[in-house]
Amino acid sequence: MGIGDDAAIIDPQLIPDGYKMVIATDTLVAGRHFREQDSAEDIGHKALAVNLSDMAAMGAQPRWLLMNLTLPNIDGQWIDGFIRGVKSLINQYPVELIGGDTTSGPLAIGFTVIGLTPRPKKRSDAREGDLIVVSGELGSAAFALQNPGKIQHCDQQLKRPIPRFDISEAVRDFAGAMIDVSDGLLADLGHICQASGLAARIDLEKIPIHQAIKDDPNWQDYVLGGGDDYQLCFTIRTDDVNLLPADCTVIGHMQKGSGVTVYQDNKQIQAKRLGFDHFG
Amino acid sequence: MGIGDDAAIIDPQLIPDGYKMVIATDTLVAGRHFREQDSAEDIGHKALAVNLSDMAAMGAQPRWLLMNLTLPNIDGQWIDGFIRGVKSLINQYPVELIGGDTTSGPLAIGFTVIGLTPRPKKRSDAREGDLIVVSGELGSAAFALQNPGKIQHCDQQLKRPIPRFDISEAVRDFAGAMIDVSDGLLADLGHICQASGLAARIDLEKIPIHQAIKDDPNWQDYVLGGGDDYQLCFTIRTDDVNLLPADCTVIGHMQKGSGVTVYQDNKQIQAKRLGFDHFG
Repeated sequence: MGIGDDAAIIDPQLIPDGYKMVIATDTLVAGRHFREQDSAEDIGHKALAVNLSDMAAMGAQPRWLLMNLTLPNIDGQWIDGFIRGVKSLINQYPVELIGGDTTSGPLAIGFTVIGLTPRPKKRSDAREGDLIVVSGELGSAAFALQNPGKIQHCDQQLKRPIPRFDISEAVRDFAGAMIDVSDGLLADLGHICQASGLAARIDLEKIPIHQAIKDDPNWQDYVLGGGDDYQLCFTIRTDDVNLLPADCTVIGHMQKGSGVTVYQDNKQIQAKRLGFDHFG
Repeated sequence: MGIGDDAAIIDPQLIPDGYKMVIATDTLVAGRHFREQDSAEDIGHKALAVNLSDMAAMGAQPRWLLMNLTLPNIDGQWIDGFIRGVKSLINQYPVELIGGDTTSGPLAIGFTVIGLTPRPKKRSDAREGDLIVVSGELGSAAFALQNPGKIQHCDQQLKRPIPRFDISEAVRDFAGAMIDVSDGLLADLGHICQASGLAARIDLEKIPIHQAIKDDPNWQDYVLGGGDDYQLCFTIRTDDVNLLPADCTVIGHMQKGSGVTVYQDNKQIQAKRLGFDHFG
């Protein structure tokens, strides 16, 4: 443990009555989840953002954090930059770094975060007839991955995603199932379908997308298959649509059946046509 | 998360009144903490044992576990063996695997364990005049690392260390500082000295060592510098020596000053003579 003892100590008296603890752990590996040539600060920010986003998806507030760094060599400048990136995000939340370890090996970053929530949001809590909602815009990070340096906003979305705690907190009390869009909308909404034993029907033209990428011939791929934006996807009862905060868009609804079907101009389109055989 | 949602949920009502949570995280990297050619079962066992040993060192009982696997490829047979190794150890404790993730990359294993204890043991709680105690025998794993296949008991100690929860539980109520011997006695006892603002004096001939390696010319190196046995080192008040369980040996005492000094036949010996400049 970096901080001192063999383990960090958490006093359960800090947990308010009726709250649950939620705990998530993620490993990001160089060459897969980020490029080794990215700036250390960007890598630090993104690794933590990905982990914190799991808390947002659970409707939880992050409280305690552990960091596992595997480094090929001790490069003080790199580590300083990395820590700067981590701190820039930590400072925005009531989360405390309480431990972790550092080891030598191929570059990889692991975060374990513990959060608190009175109402953990699960993937299995979608109900038939629920509306499907997403926050923000989808596809921006996927666009930037294919077109680096072309649209600054998209580059920023890829390198410095911001976990949507603003949305998570605002919808926690009335949302059903919730997930963060890390693997792409079709995949992640598919997880909600599977866990809830239901199907999802979404309308392609309703999915929010940044103006500047609407003309890209691959926009459908970005918006349906691109993860990495770390927006939230959740379900609500139709009556609760007036409770939604800003920057939320209804894109479809849950129904009997299984899997995600996509409609365009009220006609079902084939996943194959979209290049998403692997989500089939 | 392997189990389902974006995060695992822990109900704080499961934590008895007056107990603290302790949380430890470790990453083991192929080529550094284990050899890629070791059996998957041994790797699984050891990776978890190292992590659980942190709980023993804190005087805690392990309750919840998260596993992060980074694998270069999907080898079902390897994973089956690994899980067998993990399970063989998990089944001995009231610990539940509640989540984790699997990602592709250079072989590495991370465990995060959460435990409960009414009295977390810290490195900083040694007092002047306290006796220094170690469990079991030291140096066996270090011997096996240099002499593989020579003594079965030592090979076993290296590949399948057993966290000393038996000792941890028995001494928790009266021990002062506690640590597990993972980096070697001099280094780990040095952590207790530093955290407690005291010095340690130990007698080389008192340190328990397996009969079969006493004739090895390097036995002093193994016993003072060899970690990997995952025995416990802790301090107790002199009056409490009669409370010690079996398999515990007093090897010295805490005194004013700083650092660890080693005596042999009542003469101080130089760390340099022992090949431990790097602990100087």
